[in-house]
Amino acid sequence: MTQAYPTIRLKPNAEARAIRHGFPWVYDNELVTDRRTRNLEAGSLAVLEDNERKPLGLVTVNPNSRIIARMLDRDTETAVDQAWFTARLQRAYSHRARLYDQPFYRLVHAEADGLPGVVIDRFGDVAVVQPNAAWADVRFTELAQALVDVTGVTTVIKNGTGRARTLEGLEEVTEVTLGTAPEAPIPVPMNGATYMADVMGGQKTGLFYDQRPNHAFAAQLANGGRVLDVFSHVGGFGLAMLAGGATSALAVDGSAPALELAEQGAAASGFGDRFATRKGDAFSTLEALAEEGEQFDVVICDPPAFAPSKKALDAGLRAYERVARLATPLVKEGGYIGLCSCSHAADLAKFRGACTRGIGRAGRIGQLIYTGYAGPDHPLLPQLAETGYLKALFYRV
Amino acid sequence: MTQAYPTIRLKPNAEARAIRHGFPWVYDNELVTDRRTRNLEAGSLAVLEDNERKPLGLVTVNPNSRIIARMLDRDTETAVDQAWFTARLQRAYSHRARLYDQPFYRLVHAEADGLPGVVIDRFGDVAVVQPNAAWADVRFTELAQALVDVTGVTTVIKNGTGRARTLEGLEEVTEVTLGTAPEAPIPVPMNGATYMADVMGGQKTGLFYDQRPNHAFAAQLANGGRVLDVFSHVGGFGLAMLAGGATSALAVDGSAPALELAEQGAAASGFGDRFATRKGDAFSTLEALAEEGEQFDVVICDPPAFAPSKKALDAGLRAYERVARLATPLVKEGGYIGLCSCSHAADLAKFRGACTRGIGRAGRIGQLIYTGYAGPDHPLLPQLAETGYLKALFYRV
Repeated sequence: MTQAYPTIRLKPNAEARAIRHGFPWVYDNELVTDRRTRNLEAGSLAVLEDNERKPLGLVTVNPNSRIIARMLDRDTETAVDQAWFTARLQRAYSHRARLYDQPFYRLVHAEADGLPGVVIDRFGDVAVVQPNAAWADVRFTELAQALVDVTGVTTVIKNGTGRARTLEGLEEVTEVTLGTAPEAPIPVPMNGATYMADVMGGQKTGLFYDQRPNHAFAAQLANGGRVLDVFSHVGGFGLAMLAGGATSALAVDGSAPALELAEQGAAASGFGDRFATRKGDAFSTLEALAEEGEQFDVVICDPPAFAPSKKALDAGLRAYERVARLATPLVKEGGYIGLCSCSHAADLAKFRGACTRGIGRAGRIGQLIYTGYAGPDHPLLPQLAETGYLKALFYRV
Repeated sequence: MTQAYPTIRLKPNAEARAIRHGFPWVYDNELVTDRRTRNLEAGSLAVLEDNERKPLGLVTVNPNSRIIARMLDRDTETAVDQAWFTARLQRAYSHRARLYDQPFYRLVHAEADGLPGVVIDRFGDVAVVQPNAAWADVRFTELAQALVDVTGVTTVIKNGTGRARTLEGLEEVTEVTLGTAPEAPIPVPMNGATYMADVMGGQKTGLFYDQRPNHAFAAQLANGGRVLDVFSHVGGFGLAMLAGGATSALAVDGSAPALELAEQGAAASGFGDRFATRKGDAFSTLEALAEEGEQFDVVICDPPAFAPSKKALDAGLRAYERVARLATPLVKEGGYIGLCSCSHAADLAKFRGACTRGIGRAGRIGQLIYTGYAGPDHPLLPQLAETGYLKALFYRV
């Protein structure tokens, strides 16, 4: 079926070459925004042309967003219908099915999986979809049906919350689109432990799959040791380290519901007697543990994004340094500290610098033994690889 | 025992602060090199002072090397004797013993393990030592004896070859220092396969342990697939992928002895019937395989350092791009390509750029699914982390 889409055009100064080589976005200052373009509906489709009117591909347009156009398909005549979603999802699915024995993973990671702004996490028979771009929001029915067809999930939850939607001018909404809402947290097997995902009420989509390989590395270090998991959320590192043979794990978090899920996970994993939680501010808990003379074989700090934007970078780096400085004294001589950042703005070198300074200010010398990123169910477009947000550094101190 | 060491002094322009914070080297243009300093014997010890005569630590001096001094110990009065080596080796050993069930690993990775310029690989009861700095060369007896005491190895081989020794003005020599030389290649268990390490005659120390986690990741992708391992050396990626369930592996290398060891490893692993080798130049073999219409589920290219120095960077990046361009057509649609670099000079962003361009010029779009480094038995001083030489990128194409 041939489609006739309106056309939009790049300004002469725009990076047509980058887009031709795979960069997926057009910023609003790169586009000729005449009245016709400004009047396009958020989420509508158009053919993007370069300054010489050569077509670059089929894009979705959102005049309300700084990312005014996102590349959908190099074929400018394709229909973006349920069959199109099925093909994209099938390709994403075959990758995860090869990687994981069990159906618990990030199924779609936005641009890199050919579905700009769309994030889908799978929890067995339940899929949680974040349609964080207008084009997917207006086509949610087709997307959800294709998702059922490809994966066989029976419940599709639309999780429309978060900053990305605000930037797109989209409303906040969370609803069950297909099937029935799970009545209890979903048990999620990962790295030999069982986690509890509250897909209706939790942070983001209830559980973060991105740290899976870094959890696995921590588990390798934990065997026979006492471990501390600060900013533990639902027990990410702590439960993995118990599965790896830690003799005990203490999880610290400011959220009582998160710790409750962590305890349920520990019980479901059979680790209940080796697992303890402590609710409180991470910084003051680190100081309190030091005053109590506590020491651990492995200490992990996986804080929220301290540097979510460039403006927040300096303060964020100071916060990362402070975490490292306060956590290091809690590590036994020759033990390990794992420090994580999920800040886009703090690149690897800057984050590593902050961690190394913090360890140094605690009077210790660190060997860097591991640098990890998000797992392979979180692919990146190489053209956006600098924005690979998640970084995990492990030091022996 | 208090030692009286001569002192050497930094020039005012030298980076005393960096050294105080853990940078381990002094370059010859940073040191006040009076006649007394120039007359110090290669490998002798001295107390390094800053420009204001404050002591920074105990260093070893080599007036023949551009790295004229290397930090050994912050304690300026320590003796560098067998007990000192024992303490350093004990610390390095406890880390590896925690990480690995079996005694096959890099035991000492130079500066980061507190033994500047010294590399020790362990193959069960055999240790291969590269004393690539003068101070360790002249203390080899104490080092070897401490190594036996700490690890219980029965054979210590001194492997004194390679560029690093030339830079230090050291002679080439390979000899059995303690015990007896192994008469046959040593079987090395890693990632479920058995590799054959020729510790007397092979490249470097006979087997590279650094790719272990990247081999493991490749194995995860290989299940049920046909795989190609180019620049295979003794079968690093190929055998790991067979252990991961690959239906067949083809190993390509220019070295007949390396392929012979790969075949022995495949036989010892029980993979003999699924493993084939092809001797030849990698570039022309990639072209020949494309002409033959061959395609694989996973293709790995792990070439030697194409950019061993800054001068060789541009040519090196072009070679990496060419590898990616020639290898990509051999990957089935939706399959995987793993591209590695062991070039110091090509940093991650540059190497990734070359790979992405090569994939693009082959007419494919790549999702970056994995960025890996050397394993945790290859620790880094954070102050030298930029020089982390090994990089492995996996794309789905």
